[in-house]
Amino acid sequence: MNSQTKGAASSKEGITPRSKDYSQWYLDVVKRGDLAEHSGVRGCMVIKPHGYAIWEIMQKELDFRFKETGHVNAYFPLFIPLSYFSREEKHASGFAKECAVVTHHRLKSKDGEVIVDPESELEEPLVVRPTSETIIWAQYKSWVESYRDLPLLINQWANVVRWEMRPRLFLRTAEFLWQEGHTAHSTEKEALEEAFRMLEVYADFAENVMAVPVIRGHKTPGERFAGAVDTLCIEAMMQDGKALQMGTSHYLGQNFSKSADVKFLNKEGKLEYVYATSWGVSTRLIGALIMTHSDDQGLILPPKLAPIQVIIIPIYKNDEERAKTLEESRAVLAELKSQGISARLDDRDGLMPGAKYYEWEAKGVPLRIEIGPKDIEKGSLCLARRFVLEEANETPEDLRRRRKSFLPRAEALSAVKPILETMQKELLQRARTLQKSRTQFINSLDELEKFFKAGGGFALVHWAGDTQDEEALSKRFETTIRCIPFVEELPPQARGEGKCIWTGRLTSQCVIVAAAY
Amino acid sequence: MNSQTKGAASSKEGITPRSKDYSQWYLDVVKRGDLAEHSGVRGCMVIKPHGYAIWEIMQKELDFRFKETGHVNAYFPLFIPLSYFSREEKHASGFAKECAVVTHHRLKSKDGEVIVDPESELEEPLVVRPTSETIIWAQYKSWVESYRDLPLLINQWANVVRWEMRPRLFLRTAEFLWQEGHTAHSTEKEALEEAFRMLEVYADFAENVMAVPVIRGHKTPGERFAGAVDTLCIEAMMQDGKALQMGTSHYLGQNFSKSADVKFLNKEGKLEYVYATSWGVSTRLIGALIMTHSDDQGLILPPKLAPIQVIIIPIYKNDEERAKTLEESRAVLAELKSQGISARLDDRDGLMPGAKYYEWEAKGVPLRIEIGPKDIEKGSLCLARRFVLEEANETPEDLRRRRKSFLPRAEALSAVKPILETMQKELLQRARTLQKSRTQFINSLDELEKFFKAGGGFALVHWAGDTQDEEALSKRFETTIRCIPFVEELPPQARGEGKCIWTGRLTSQCVIVAAAY
Repeated sequence: MNSQTKGAASSKEGITPRSKDYSQWYLDVVKRGDLAEHSGVRGCMVIKPHGYAIWEIMQKELDFRFKETGHVNAYFPLFIPLSYFSREEKHASGFAKECAVVTHHRLKSKDGEVIVDPESELEEPLVVRPTSETIIWAQYKSWVESYRDLPLLINQWANVVRWEMRPRLFLRTAEFLWQEGHTAHSTEKEALEEAFRMLEVYADFAENVMAVPVIRGHKTPGERFAGAVDTLCIEAMMQDGKALQMGTSHYLGQNFSKSADVKFLNKEGKLEYVYATSWGVSTRLIGALIMTHSDDQGLILPPKLAPIQVIIIPIYKNDEERAKTLEESRAVLAELKSQGISARLDDRDGLMPGAKYYEWEAKGVPLRIEIGPKDIEKGSLCLARRFVLEEANETPEDLRRRRKSFLPRAEALSAVKPILETMQKELLQRARTLQKSRTQFINSLDELEKFFKAGGGFALVHWAGDTQDEEALSKRFETTIRCIPFVEELPPQARGEGKCIWTGRLTSQCVIVAAAY
Repeated sequence: MNSQTKGAASSKEGITPRSKDYSQWYLDVVKRGDLAEHSGVRGCMVIKPHGYAIWEIMQKELDFRFKETGHVNAYFPLFIPLSYFSREEKHASGFAKECAVVTHHRLKSKDGEVIVDPESELEEPLVVRPTSETIIWAQYKSWVESYRDLPLLINQWANVVRWEMRPRLFLRTAEFLWQEGHTAHSTEKEALEEAFRMLEVYADFAENVMAVPVIRGHKTPGERFAGAVDTLCIEAMMQDGKALQMGTSHYLGQNFSKSADVKFLNKEGKLEYVYATSWGVSTRLIGALIMTHSDDQGLILPPKLAPIQVIIIPIYKNDEERAKTLEESRAVLAELKSQGISARLDDRDGLMPGAKYYEWEAKGVPLRIEIGPKDIEKGSLCLARRFVLEEANETPEDLRRRRKSFLPRAEALSAVKPILETMQKELLQRARTLQKSRTQFINSLDELEKFFKAGGGFALVHWAGDTQDEEALSKRFETTIRCIPFVEELPPQARGEGKCIWTGRLTSQCVIVAAAY
């Protein structure tokens, strides 16, 4: 437990309000929540135990969904021979730039210092994987002979490295953790279905576990993954109105199977190149989680992702009270655990209850139970929610009051699960309300300019431009085209034909323009 | 499912018998079991889905035990700045030699080829972690101020790289997967207790999950982890009598806290260096698993580590029989699953039952259920065990017969769990019998020579030599001193005083000498 608490317990700094400095607020939430920190290696972060525990729950939830949809896990090498990058031309030119390159394989001691042995230079440099398409497809070559060997439905949990000049904890780090699915199919139809299926898995996870509403769509050609025929994505809106890409699912066609020469004998006895997909989400999701839900008191976690759902805090002034409240706290802990709730008792001595409240609030624990001598006398418990949905015309005082309830013991214990379920739902609801309120259908450049000057959000615009037009638009507004949403994601006025906001050409294609992380 | 079966299904090669070529037998078992294969990167393996599924169960079992003993997981950077290696002198000189070194951070295209951008050279080379003590202790410096911040009980699941000139799948690979625990304590006593506790966790896992009996002991000073005060280990005997180190737990004293300058304010208000441990096991355990249990038909998995515990194979000659046996197979599958058994139905068409038996045997599935039209008529099931313990004076025919039983349906279904439990126990029993039969207390060099000429095993000898003596002994017999077993691991004649087999000096220390992987 100490290992999880130290950072926050000893840190007395507060959290910069969002209204004052959103970027600093984010860093403060990460720090006070004891989630991660920078290391001595430029761009590489340390994921601290509380942050890692959130990632473990994400992994478990995602892995379950991957297996339910027929996938298995495997592990491929960290290193990719440099020559592999020359194989898929678009992939090489579009993607593989900022990579860590291994050139030597031995250290030696010299005058008490450790140096790189110059005689250990590798014949061929090895690139630390920025993504694994090239090495995995080199391997698939020997795995596939006929249609009977397909599909290959494989996922890998791994670390990857992309050199980053402007690192930002969770959002952009040189090394990050992720999963990457790499599948092989005998038909285009099946591969496309797979790419869409996995996007739905991501969307379901984002909305129903992370409580983050997302827009499903296609990337424009200019924003596609290098080597993909089509890139599908889910985009979420953060509290400041900026977009964050949460996950991508690529239909790769036969691009990688051709460059790795992976053919199969189809049912008609003819050799054909295999069809492929790849899809991934990363520790970046933790950044999205923070920026969607948290407030000026720190992290807010949806109960389904909270390593600790309920923290129990005994309140006492002397040894006698201590014994009494600890006994009751342990009893409450046991009862919650028997309900399958992840609860913990903070029985640390020498810390005032207020300091404990402050610490667990900053760590996003959804529910606090306070147990003092008077509560025991009355046979009641005090439940303090980390989050309740604000009501119209509510005073801050009313809101504060609604966060706390004093209930008879039995009632309180059976209220915990429903409270957590409500919180899970209301977090999604709040985020959805924000997203809706800051999404606007816009049909002129003037209006678009006003929209972004007024704070921005998701602008829905008709679009028929090419990649150059897209670059010009992006430059003008310091935004990007986030995606071409699936039609069912669009409000009625954005469906159907309209004039492209840039070229004026008639088009039925609508895109989201937004500033992004 | 295809992704798990292809390698074996399409491979028609057999398995070299152990008696003919043990090394080739090992490689054949790995290949036919579809566990792993070499990649295009020297020394780096691909862990295939079936092999990775075994690792996932190992991870789950170990992670549960780590958390039960109070540990939490975290994640530290893959890269370690070169200068960190100069900090802990013994660690640097004894350990950090064969490492992958990153020297550049960018690729670029030149004449259609991808090359390393010479202008992207790093100011300080980065070493891909061979183990993480140096980088983790650099981080702990800011996490520890007072005894209240201790202990830190942190584990990391990660990939590590140690350049290997003679790679061997699972046993020695340049990159491998492992866990590394790194703990910090306020007293020597507590740190020592932790090192012993984690060794017991490993021993419990080895014996009660892997069914591999182990000897607990200390490494000699010459075999200690570089930077450790004491290295504890568990050693197992493979079927060929050679030793394999399964896991180590190090008491590091204050060596790493001194080199990283990690001090804490103790209860007396004085600054003191922190006491440390580290401990790890790796994918090497899969090599140990294979070499302990498997036979000339391929892999044998203890049921607790089997991704598939029961495989159901319908037997039919025509469509009508197919429909009937598939229906019954599905019913049996559902009943086994409801018992919490990991069962699977092999309903692939166009493969003869014999080919399926052969494939799942090679993959180590503990129990096969065959369902043919006659079984359905009779209301019975055929259970075929992958392994039964051989009885004294049993003919191969008798043994074969005992592996198969035909039982009335209800009886068969309730027999599955007990059969799996018995197999788990008997695998441990068989391995323990082998280990005992090939462990011998020896008190002269002549006898030792005879022992190793006759095939060897674990030689227990009194030992009072120093590191130079140890090297000479190792050279003479092509063995190493595996460990100084805890006294409770020793047979009565090896306890108490005796003459050192090398120096002739009286000593109460007994060691295990053996050839090793």
